[in-house]
Amino acid sequence: MEVTVKFIADLIDAEIFGDENAKVSNIATIESAKKGDLTFIANKKYLKYINSTGATAVILEKYIEGSNVTQLVTPNPYLAYAKILTFFTKREVKHCGINSGAVIAENTKFKNRDNVTIYPFVFIDENVSIGENVIIYPNVFIGRDSVLGDNCIIYSNVSIYHNTKIGNNVTIHSGTVVGSDGFGYAKDGDKYFKIPQIGNVVIEDDVEIGAGCTIDRGALNSTIIKKGTKIDNLVQIAHNVEIGENSAIVAQVGISGSSKLGKNVVLAGQVGVAGHLKIGNNVMVGAQSGIGKSVPDNKILSGSPAIEHSKWLKWAITYKDLPDLIKRVRKLEKLLGDKNDKN
Amino acid sequence: MEVTVKFIADLIDAEIFGDENAKVSNIATIESAKKGDLTFIANKKYLKYINSTGATAVILEKYIEGSNVTQLVTPNPYLAYAKILTFFTKREVKHCGINSGAVIAENTKFKNRDNVTIYPFVFIDENVSIGENVIIYPNVFIGRDSVLGDNCIIYSNVSIYHNTKIGNNVTIHSGTVVGSDGFGYAKDGDKYFKIPQIGNVVIEDDVEIGAGCTIDRGALNSTIIKKGTKIDNLVQIAHNVEIGENSAIVAQVGISGSSKLGKNVVLAGQVGVAGHLKIGNNVMVGAQSGIGKSVPDNKILSGSPAIEHSKWLKWAITYKDLPDLIKRVRKLEKLLGDKNDKN
Amino acid sequence: MEVTVKFIADLIDAEIFGDENAKVSNIATIESAKKGDLTFIANKKYLKYINSTGATAVILEKYIEGSNVTQLVTPNPYLAYAKILTFFTKREVKHCGINSGAVIAENTKFKNRDNVTIYPFVFIDENVSIGENVIIYPNVFIGRDSVLGDNCIIYSNVSIYHNTKIGNNVTIHSGTVVGSDGFGYAKDGDKYFKIPQIGNVVIEDDVEIGAGCTIDRGALNSTIIKKGTKIDNLVQIAHNVEIGENSAIVAQVGISGSSKLGKNVVLAGQVGVAGHLKIGNNVMVGAQSGIGKSVPDNKILSGSPAIEHSKWLKWAITYKDLPDLIKRVRKLEKLLGDKNDKN
Repeated sequence: MEVTVKFIADLIDAEIFGDENAKVSNIATIESAKKGDLTFIANKKYLKYINSTGATAVILEKYIEGSNVTQLVTPNPYLAYAKILTFFTKREVKHCGINSGAVIAENTKFKNRDNVTIYPFVFIDENVSIGENVIIYPNVFIGRDSVLGDNCIIYSNVSIYHNTKIGNNVTIHSGTVVGSDGFGYAKDGDKYFKIPQIGNVVIEDDVEIGAGCTIDRGALNSTIIKKGTKIDNLVQIAHNVEIGENSAIVAQVGISGSSKLGKNVVLAGQVGVAGHLKIGNNVMVGAQSGIGKSVPDNKILSGSPAIEHSKWLKWAITYKDLPDLIKRVRKLEKLLGDKNDKN
Repeated sequence: MEVTVKFIADLIDAEIFGDENAKVSNIATIESAKKGDLTFIANKKYLKYINSTGATAVILEKYIEGSNVTQLVTPNPYLAYAKILTFFTKREVKHCGINSGAVIAENTKFKNRDNVTIYPFVFIDENVSIGENVIIYPNVFIGRDSVLGDNCIIYSNVSIYHNTKIGNNVTIHSGTVVGSDGFGYAKDGDKYFKIPQIGNVVIEDDVEIGAGCTIDRGALNSTIIKKGTKIDNLVQIAHNVEIGENSAIVAQVGISGSSKLGKNVVLAGQVGVAGHLKIGNNVMVGAQSGIGKSVPDNKILSGSPAIEHSKWLKWAITYKDLPDLIKRVRKLEKLLGDKNDKN
Repeated sequence: MEVTVKFIADLIDAEIFGDENAKVSNIATIESAKKGDLTFIANKKYLKYINSTGATAVILEKYIEGSNVTQLVTPNPYLAYAKILTFFTKREVKHCGINSGAVIAENTKFKNRDNVTIYPFVFIDENVSIGENVIIYPNVFIGRDSVLGDNCIIYSNVSIYHNTKIGNNVTIHSGTVVGSDGFGYAKDGDKYFKIPQIGNVVIEDDVEIGAGCTIDRGALNSTIIKKGTKIDNLVQIAHNVEIGENSAIVAQVGISGSSKLGKNVVLAGQVGVAGHLKIGNNVMVGAQSGIGKSVPDNKILSGSPAIEHSKWLKWAITYKDLPDLIKRVRKLEKLLGDKNDKN
């Protein structure tokens, strides 16, 4: 699709320095861009290409004097890139309705049957509500009494257990399981006696969940993923966990039962969080770390068990020296022992 | 459902101090309980509420003098809670038979076709046996020659490869894969040549397996999960592994090929166990630990590689001090060098 | 099936010392083998059984003087074992064609409709190409514009997103997801703005992927798994990753976005690799390690963060001594302080 530089500037809320009527139809890297392309500079080291680029217009954070290329100035060029790429790659969704190869309970409540797409081999149990513009791919199971908000996309082979409440604009990737029983048992001698898991899962608006995740239902109440949070692949979220707004949980993280995370938390890949903890707002945790205690707001931690990230960095470059250090201390002890003997 | 205190006392094998004919219909926390509710005290710190609770009866470990509330005394109040909750939340299962949207081989052997529930989009291959009261949710695949015992629940999107033998009262949550090929190859120069995985998986009675797990079939013999063992989500169990009775394997654990675990083993989240090891009875391993050697009975280990848990606790609070310790040793060396120079 | 020793020798390219016309029909361990069985010695400690074994023929690396049993001498007896086991256990595949319970777009391109097997509840979207001798198990989803080469086996409940390109002889085990969106967002204040993931996944010939894996599509270009690579279960491969030929990625490994691995790389279980790294050819990494920097060819690493494996081994046996070492240094400081005071 061809649009004007003016149209793009409005889309990304940028100031134009140059020809607002020039036409663009694509976004490309600064080195490969040619006439009709937009490009962007999110990293200063690419500023040197500004005069050699073939792009029709360049998006950047601050206006550069003495360049001939049209400039679109906006505080966050990377965000602008994401918005423009979204615009250029958006596929027209033609809603296909409910395929006759799906099995859907008669009392399913559709907000608008005309703008949903339900593929074959989807099973929807009793008393489910489905919002507008929802797409449900093949082999999805949705348990009774569940709710899906507007604009949800549920990819193939997802399992959603009964009574799950999902908000608007939620995307769940293939193979993910929402609402399975939490790991709760009472000891009965050597045996385990199952504790019924009678809570549910609540997923708020604008959440995206990757592929192959497992999110257990609450034991008595709800497991909650709050608005805007993004979850990568193969993440385990145990019963009664709460994850605050706009958090990012990277692949293969595990969060144990009843832990509550604040807003804007970032857990890097393979992190483990023990149960019954409170993790504050804006906490960031490095990859493979183990969180065994509650964490106040704004901390940056790494290591297993986790310590301040700055301390961990020092440990990380010295830990290999421990065997040598032991030898050095032994030598000192020997030296000092000799001295003591001499005295 | 409303029942008498006497009925509950029989259910949990408790002694009654108070009105055995009082009616109860729910279980609640000690602070929120009101007339008609049962409550329980599993932790001594809640004993202070015994006189202020609105509950009709309280379950606890030892009789408390001078309280007016009816008391049900039993050695394990938490187990009693689990049993009562199970009683109050049990849904009547109305078996729906075999949905015509399932594809089931003609030679499938049903112990009793009238009390099974098989949802649409289930595929059952040749020569499978299905016990009584089995429920199989949508999109489950069961390979040829497999056996499911009585009272099994197989949730949606589970894959069970051929020749899997599953006992009674086994529950498998969504997305789990049982019987996939083990990771076995012979090196052929730079290439890998696949070793046929011709064993199977045996799951004994009373096992529960969480969501998104992978349990590989044996290379020549069986991978075995013994009676009463509970497995959380996203757990990897490699070929030829054996897990003893009443063990608990927490989320994201990985157990490598041919390792044998004893009874009552507990592996916390994200633990890794190397291959060809023997892990004794009653072994407990802390989260994220790495087990590289066989472990005798009754050990408690933590760390990667794992050491005695008590030693690991000391390491865990001191490891951040290593960079500082290196400086201190350097200073001592310098001091001692100077002294040596002076002497 | 009964065959001659000569037939087996040809199959595994071995030299025969003994009766080439003897008949064999099975492969067994050296201690359990009886007449009509082959056995093999891949480990020298089993050489002692060569005169007592009941096997008709034994496969080994070097001819042993003075033994009566027929010997098949080949440089890699374990590989020979794999080849013979493959021969004896090969099931005749009777291709069943396309089951009417599958939903397949009309414009699907089949190389040969007569030798494919597609089970019920498979959904194949528009414009997919399917090679010869392909088997697709129930509940598989294949997105539009995807390609499957010859002899592929796709097990139940696999999800393959649109535009995935899969070569010949590729096996994908149950529950695996190929082509889900990468974890890519631009920050928009506190919120995350999704970056469209418009690349795809390319899987070359002879790749096997285990159960429950997640392989994200490229953001702009391709995520690539090269020829002959084997991937175990529950492995996470992020967007834009490339894995070189004949690599082995063990269970629960996570590889972050845009990292490129060389040929013949081995990553043991639960390893994590950070993003945007280059891992050289023939690199081996120990279980649970964390790779935070690029790695040159031929390195063997362990630990988190990873160091030379040989150094890690020394650390691994001494790290528990750190708390004690701190005490010893304190004592030295005290001693030396006292000395200083005395001076």
